[in-house]
Amino acid sequence: MTTHETQMTQIDETDDRVETLLGEMTLREKAGQLAGTYVGTMEETRTLDDAESMVRDHGIGFVTPFGYGASPHRDAEEVVEIANELQRIATEETRLGIPICIPIDAIHGNAYVEETTVFPHNLGVAAARDRDLVERIGAVTATEVAATGSSLTYGPTCDVARDPRWGRTFETFGESPSLCGELASAKARGIRGAPVDVAAMAKHFPAYGEPERGEDASPVDKSLSSLYRDFLPPFEKVIAEGIEGIMPSYNSINGEPSHGSRYWLSQVLRDELGFEGYVASDWNGIDMLHRDHRVTRTPRESVFRSLTAGVDVHSLGETDHVDHVVSLVESGQLNESVVDTAVRRVLELKADVGLFDDPYVDADESAATLGTDENRAVALDAARKSMTLLKNESDRLPFDQDLDDVLVTGPNADELTHQVGGWSLKENDELDGTTVREGIESVVSADTSVTYERGSKIDDPDDLDAAVSAAEDADAAVVVLGENWYLHEFGPQDVNGPTDRFPNRAQLTLPDAQQELLEAVVETGTPTALVLVSGRPLAVSWAAEHVDAIVQAYYPGADGGIAVAETLFGELNPSGKLPISVPRSEGHLPVRHNYLPHPHPIGPDEHLPSYDPLWAFGHGLSYTTFEYQDLAVAEDAVLEGEELSVSVTLENAGERAGDEVVQLFGGRDYSSVVTPVEELLDFERVSLAPGEETTVEFEIPSDAFDVVRPDGTSRFEPGTLSLRCESLEASIEAVVN
Amino acid sequence: MTTHETQMTQIDETDDRVETLLGEMTLREKAGQLAGTYVGTMEETRTLDDAESMVRDHGIGFVTPFGYGASPHRDAEEVVEIANELQRIATEETRLGIPICIPIDAIHGNAYVEETTVFPHNLGVAAARDRDLVERIGAVTATEVAATGSSLTYGPTCDVARDPRWGRTFETFGESPSLCGELASAKARGIRGAPVDVAAMAKHFPAYGEPERGEDASPVDKSLSSLYRDFLPPFEKVIAEGIEGIMPSYNSINGEPSHGSRYWLSQVLRDELGFEGYVASDWNGIDMLHRDHRVTRTPRESVFRSLTAGVDVHSLGETDHVDHVVSLVESGQLNESVVDTAVRRVLELKADVGLFDDPYVDADESAATLGTDENRAVALDAARKSMTLLKNESDRLPFDQDLDDVLVTGPNADELTHQVGGWSLKENDELDGTTVREGIESVVSADTSVTYERGSKIDDPDDLDAAVSAAEDADAAVVVLGENWYLHEFGPQDVNGPTDRFPNRAQLTLPDAQQELLEAVVETGTPTALVLVSGRPLAVSWAAEHVDAIVQAYYPGADGGIAVAETLFGELNPSGKLPISVPRSEGHLPVRHNYLPHPHPIGPDEHLPSYDPLWAFGHGLSYTTFEYQDLAVAEDAVLEGEELSVSVTLENAGERAGDEVVQLFGGRDYSSVVTPVEELLDFERVSLAPGEETTVEFEIPSDAFDVVRPDGTSRFEPGTLSLRCESLEASIEAVVN
Repeated sequence: MTTHETQMTQIDETDDRVETLLGEMTLREKAGQLAGTYVGTMEETRTLDDAESMVRDHGIGFVTPFGYGASPHRDAEEVVEIANELQRIATEETRLGIPICIPIDAIHGNAYVEETTVFPHNLGVAAARDRDLVERIGAVTATEVAATGSSLTYGPTCDVARDPRWGRTFETFGESPSLCGELASAKARGIRGAPVDVAAMAKHFPAYGEPERGEDASPVDKSLSSLYRDFLPPFEKVIAEGIEGIMPSYNSINGEPSHGSRYWLSQVLRDELGFEGYVASDWNGIDMLHRDHRVTRTPRESVFRSLTAGVDVHSLGETDHVDHVVSLVESGQLNESVVDTAVRRVLELKADVGLFDDPYVDADESAATLGTDENRAVALDAARKSMTLLKNESDRLPFDQDLDDVLVTGPNADELTHQVGGWSLKENDELDGTTVREGIESVVSADTSVTYERGSKIDDPDDLDAAVSAAEDADAAVVVLGENWYLHEFGPQDVNGPTDRFPNRAQLTLPDAQQELLEAVVETGTPTALVLVSGRPLAVSWAAEHVDAIVQAYYPGADGGIAVAETLFGELNPSGKLPISVPRSEGHLPVRHNYLPHPHPIGPDEHLPSYDPLWAFGHGLSYTTFEYQDLAVAEDAVLEGEELSVSVTLENAGERAGDEVVQLFGGRDYSSVVTPVEELLDFERVSLAPGEETTVEFEIPSDAFDVVRPDGTSRFEPGTLSLRCESLEASIEAVVN
Repeated sequence: MTTHETQMTQIDETDDRVETLLGEMTLREKAGQLAGTYVGTMEETRTLDDAESMVRDHGIGFVTPFGYGASPHRDAEEVVEIANELQRIATEETRLGIPICIPIDAIHGNAYVEETTVFPHNLGVAAARDRDLVERIGAVTATEVAATGSSLTYGPTCDVARDPRWGRTFETFGESPSLCGELASAKARGIRGAPVDVAAMAKHFPAYGEPERGEDASPVDKSLSSLYRDFLPPFEKVIAEGIEGIMPSYNSINGEPSHGSRYWLSQVLRDELGFEGYVASDWNGIDMLHRDHRVTRTPRESVFRSLTAGVDVHSLGETDHVDHVVSLVESGQLNESVVDTAVRRVLELKADVGLFDDPYVDADESAATLGTDENRAVALDAARKSMTLLKNESDRLPFDQDLDDVLVTGPNADELTHQVGGWSLKENDELDGTTVREGIESVVSADTSVTYERGSKIDDPDDLDAAVSAAEDADAAVVVLGENWYLHEFGPQDVNGPTDRFPNRAQLTLPDAQQELLEAVVETGTPTALVLVSGRPLAVSWAAEHVDAIVQAYYPGADGGIAVAETLFGELNPSGKLPISVPRSEGHLPVRHNYLPHPHPIGPDEHLPSYDPLWAFGHGLSYTTFEYQDLAVAEDAVLEGEELSVSVTLENAGERAGDEVVQLFGGRDYSSVVTPVEELLDFERVSLAPGEETTVEFEIPSDAFDVVRPDGTSRFEPGTLSLRCESLEASIEAVVN
């Protein structure tokens, strides 16, 4: 048989098995497959016994016993045992023996389990601008997820971060819809291409990344043009990659909560975008319909609304969900065919990831798989490529590895939990990695003395005098500031203290204690580099003016301290490019490279610029110099459906080898509606030795310039298309036959 | 004849005259009626001679020779002569003798002409919450507009201010769509009800008040639900009042520039909202289609697009517009019927305002009309009612009129141009009014010594030491801070200096110089009151904590200093209520009382509150105490089309007479889509003597609770309706038959 025929046969077999099973299931058994439960303490506590009972006695189809924030089970050996025991119960102690699915929050690696590989968060990964790297991250993540008996990861994140105040900014690939789409689909490909059976779940559909006030889960209220142009592209791309699952967003879109929106979940997601997989609620997303959005009055109404809208699975629905589904069907309100459709999708998912073939994981194999050197090397590669040199006045960096005394200071210099960020274990002793301090100790010469003084906590003073005194004695100072571990709206409080403290959504400037440390160290006159370990772009206006060298490190993962240290001391030539603009202040927001042009009624000079960030999207310096020339388009004109062949030449004109990410931007001089001044069209990472030159070629499909109309539809229009690469510009006419 | 028959006869006569004229006009004469010009210096200079030639030689139908910012003609006698001479040329020296229309920017009175009445700006007027007052302002404005030979005022403003960074916030009636609607329609009624023929022009249709980044004329990108719920209601109300004109907004709405949007200007404005008047471009609004929005390529295309979209008049089109219109018709691209429709609306407008009967103004009558004591008393009444006491810790205010020494300090204490704000003459010697300093000198006892030290400029230090020294010697200090005269995006630079200085859109906090003055005065321990003269709500977090008494004075108009002084020294008991929320910082924006509820995924405690302003919409203290009781709804339930009869009782429980604005808010506990937590339903201003009690009754139409759906349509839905008045709550069931 050909490969295609093999696939078709497998699908047929799956279909047969699913239909046979479905035909044998009672209504209650079906409903059980549409509900999930957990182990841990959220609003209520669920023990392992509870979960086992849910599976055994109620046929619940999904369980998350570990691999997320509130589970007490983190030990790698223990979670494998838990997974296997739950599967044993499901397959041996239920009537039909349907295995459970174990979805987990493997947001940046399987990071809620000990001894796993903890990658940089997506915002940093996006700075690396490397699709292959992201595929490898996806593959490693899938492998380590499978190794703990889970077969579904909640990701990739397709959210576009359009308000940097948002506490989930670090989970995204930044502010560009095309960059988010390219990297989310690379992640999906990586998961799918891994030598294990793990499904992926794109989130949060359709629009989550521009919440009002930057407040997590608050409404997105945007035109259809913006929703289709700025938010949907990443979902379109992962659906084209065959993503298995979609998770709706918690918030409401233009008044409709995603979890209860037939428009978004059926009309757009299935009819327009052609998605054929399954949709599972974000945790508690269905109960929020009555609790918070107030669009239903009871849990039962919420179940009805979400199921008919297109949510197949209530991720934390438990037996209540089963009862509601059964009752809705039995009372005649809900057609059983709606339930059958949802159950069919669940069973297909379980078949696809091989759960019917073998739901168990081998404990020895697991131990040999998690956090291997090879896997961690991928994470370190990501951290290295993500390092973004924002400023390097007078070639302040790199520091000499032979300095006598180096001061390392700041709340993020030696705190592994801060360095990994949220969606990870949050006790230092549960983590294995290298802090910036440790990284520096490992890269400097044997004769170099490295002094560490914290100098400041995240939002509280520490021993500032000690830090200043050490700075005075040092030959160089590394000040590592930023944000700590947080989730969603900067919680939970037991980690981060009161909500009005930094980090919070209203503040992107450094808190006083950190700012004072920075100013005091700079004041000493000792050469100083600022490293920002943060999930959001911070409005460091003072630093931008007064500190010579600034490195954005994002949340660089467990071994990120090595990448930071190598950057500071020249073992690594930084090559990251900002995936999000760095604003001057909160008052300047929104600050986005792809803003819409507009009039200036009494003259452009009367306005602060529409886009004038501290550092722009795409910015990132190197220790060498790349000289660009000859941006050219091969064609004279482009017709609908054709491609533009764009090339640009660059040379490493400096004296160090280095990577450069070549970024091609494009826009329209004219269109029937207002379109963004420019968007990122494509990018490619190249490595060049000193003096080496290369020509990068891009094939840009004409639809990259399609105009999104007010109703959300796109069309090709004539007009001049403009291209930009660094400061080079070119243009080409779009022609309609 | 009955009144109705009389009206119908008049309409018939107008129609006949218009149709007769239209039949006689050449294409070029028609096109001339669709174009306007100006006198003054904007991008180019136009002299009076230029304007006369435009009328005489090109049949231009609209001229603005004065009454706006860039005209050199401000003298009251002179402008009357200019108006009359232009009308003489139009009626005597053109073939058909069609009079011109003179539209002017009488935004807060005819304030670009000397000796006129300069009212508080709308934001302050909105704080007064007094429909009758606003009608009187409209009537006086119309009277003074007519007295200078103008027959059209660019107003009322229907914009809802949803981003307080916006430089046009002070022109609006605030953040509540219902308040904006009530007051804009009151203004329109006042203009229409005046004993003169002046037309009004509602602006800026359909949505202007939530520009991206708060930047003037930047895009509004919102759902149709929000556009219909938050932006359109004021336009619906003024259209119901028979408003003559509509001005489109400069910006784009969801990608469509208003000036080129057939959807907004024809489908929504005319077909849905039933508007039958004329539409004139905002100045340069048509040229912005190609210059800035880039949705057309040439001026000619812009003319075609705007005319076919539904813009009748190009306010600054001049002969270029005439040429384009003629060419478009002659080339067959544009059907002449489109031109005829537009010209018909223009001629009907001119007929309606009596220009065909008598286009001249009597110079003596004009002099006797402008800025009369009676008119200025209306402005002072408005200023008095607008004074909003934000804070009065320990009854710090009112100050005793018999104090020995009072310090008056701050950049807005004695600067009339700052006090009147933009859309007014901007030289002190052109203005006649009373500053805060002068007001205080007039209300304190003869024995009180009033010291004035500016202490700070708007964004520059002044002699701070002198102010502090005077504060130390004083028994009370009045610190008058805030913003200066500005237009749009805080220009022009020749008034306000570089654009990055305060005021600018990125900053709502006080600039350093003002903050230092305030802190230094408070530090002296002298009892201090802060007065804010500003067009926007300023984020005065420090003051909110450290200053006992704070009065928001808005831009209180030429005689506003009297109202401020009377408030500070107890001759007036303040009664203004905030028409807009005062944010804690720019990072908290948007901060609006009518926000949409939403989920809190890891618990509400993890979020800063969605609405937690320094002072809320509707806040405003008094020197007396009003006690509310018995909020009640008469009905048991409400059906579609019925009214709710709501009553509440309040008593003046203090020892001073005072006015109180009773404000009724309402919301829905449940609806098919997410709806605002509450909206202002109605309000009424009452005066109560000490010990006096009254019951206020509101009749609320059920459609005040209609639910706006994602497609913009509204419908009545069942559910619990909640009502709130101060801290009292009530509810009623909405029932569907």
